[in-house]
Amino acid sequence: MMRRGENEEYVYGINAIRALISAHRESLHALLIARDKRDPRLRTLLSSAAEAGIPVHARPTAVLSKLVGNHHHQGLVAVVAGFAYSDLETLLEHGRAVDNPLYILLDGVQDPGNLGAVIRSAFLFGAQGLIMPKDRAVGVTPAVRKAAAGGAERLPIARVSNLGQAMAFMSKNYGVWMLALDQNAPDPIYAHDLRRPLGLVVGGEAKGMRPSIKKRCEMTAHIPRMIADHSMDSLNVSVAAGIALYEVRRQGGSSKGAL
Amino acid sequence: MMRRGENEEYVYGINAIRALISAHRESLHALLIARDKRDPRLRTLLSSAAEAGIPVHARPTAVLSKLVGNHHHQGLVAVVAGFAYSDLETLLEHGRAVDNPLYILLDGVQDPGNLGAVIRSAFLFGAQGLIMPKDRAVGVTPAVRKAAAGGAERLPIARVSNLGQAMAFMSKNYGVWMLALDQNAPDPIYAHDLRRPLGLVVGGEAKGMRPSIKKRCEMTAHIPRMIADHSMDSLNVSVAAGIALYEVRRQGGSSKGAL
Repeated sequence: MMRRGENEEYVYGINAIRALISAHRESLHALLIARDKRDPRLRTLLSSAAEAGIPVHARPTAVLSKLVGNHHHQGLVAVVAGFAYSDLETLLEHGRAVDNPLYILLDGVQDPGNLGAVIRSAFLFGAQGLIMPKDRAVGVTPAVRKAAAGGAERLPIARVSNLGQAMAFMSKNYGVWMLALDQNAPDPIYAHDLRRPLGLVVGGEAKGMRPSIKKRCEMTAHIPRMIADHSMDSLNVSVAAGIALYEVRRQGGSSKGAL
Repeated sequence: MMRRGENEEYVYGINAIRALISAHRESLHALLIARDKRDPRLRTLLSSAAEAGIPVHARPTAVLSKLVGNHHHQGLVAVVAGFAYSDLETLLEHGRAVDNPLYILLDGVQDPGNLGAVIRSAFLFGAQGLIMPKDRAVGVTPAVRKAAAGGAERLPIARVSNLGQAMAFMSKNYGVWMLALDQNAPDPIYAHDLRRPLGLVVGGEAKGMRPSIKKRCEMTAHIPRMIADHSMDSLNVSVAAGIALYEVRRQGGSSKGAL
């Protein structure tokens, strides 16, 4: 049996593991495959693992389920170094490579599925990084990495002790404009010119954005809806973030590098 | 102890239950509240339940958890009539009330969180209804109703035996244009004029849209992204659907009735 090292985690989800093999070989310690697994989708994956010299061990399915704490692993689990966060300055220096870098800042997202979906969208829409606080928010856990479907291994993600200070630092030293998504804001998001270095600031599921965070934003915008029903919560946080990322992209505001 | 009737379900989530009290009093049989529950948010809710003559029973927290099968009920569970689907024709006749009705059609969405988030977005963006197949797709379960945060009690939802036939019926008899979201389509979604009676057709998480469904669509469109990484899945299905609904709304293409 393998033992979990201090800094080892278990990652599951075929897309997440495929991304690890192609982009983060060095953090991948081993693959565990269920003894009775006969999924044709795994063949290419296992042969690229073999090429990369990654040890593959067969284990009973029940062992995999116990390691990851559920049954959603599709018979394949990767033993990896704990999630490697970027530090804020490295992330921002990296963002200098494009004209109008795009960042997403989350204030208090708690649900792993939501965080994963935001990471996935942010990567696909070409954002340069995601910034979130260390406290009162979910970290990049294995469940988040699975929901991000490979995005967490590709998008730089920084955790900061003080989100407000990080925003001030980004504004002052990197010229990033902060836009708060706020359903009570007067302007719809498409009324803003988003073609500039931009930080999209999104609040969490339960309590939304802290007032101290909103105050630091130069712009606020709502996502226009047909129904203004105050007995209902707003859009799901990952849907709202996805729409904002799309709107930046529609305006041609994010970098042109990767397409 | 209450017994679950043939057609009773348990609904949890404070927003979902609030929506039931205000819009579907007739389907709400009783409320069960955890004995030790002291949440100030519940006060208004319980007093409107009392006004509406809904019986409220105190139960141990463990009983609530057992009824709904998890611990996410926040100490409040509603006993309701099983989810009331619309029939397709009633849903479409209702949609005639607006100039450019907007429908969303899901082909094979399996994840309750995703279906709930799509329902929530569809309601908030003013869609006239959601249509989905009976087979190979999750139904409107209590977990879906919770994720929809009140939307499932307000948006007409029809389940059909044959989604392709339903699309043909909608096109022929109600003049609905079908637009398939397809990441391989040549046009981005904003290149289409969406100001018309519209059905947004979205495939499920695992297998996407069946070719027989895509063939029935007059239009196809992709959501433009920066990263075309074929080793990664596309956007989360609820994010993709939310972006398409937003784009219709941004163009002013859906009804003006409810704002």
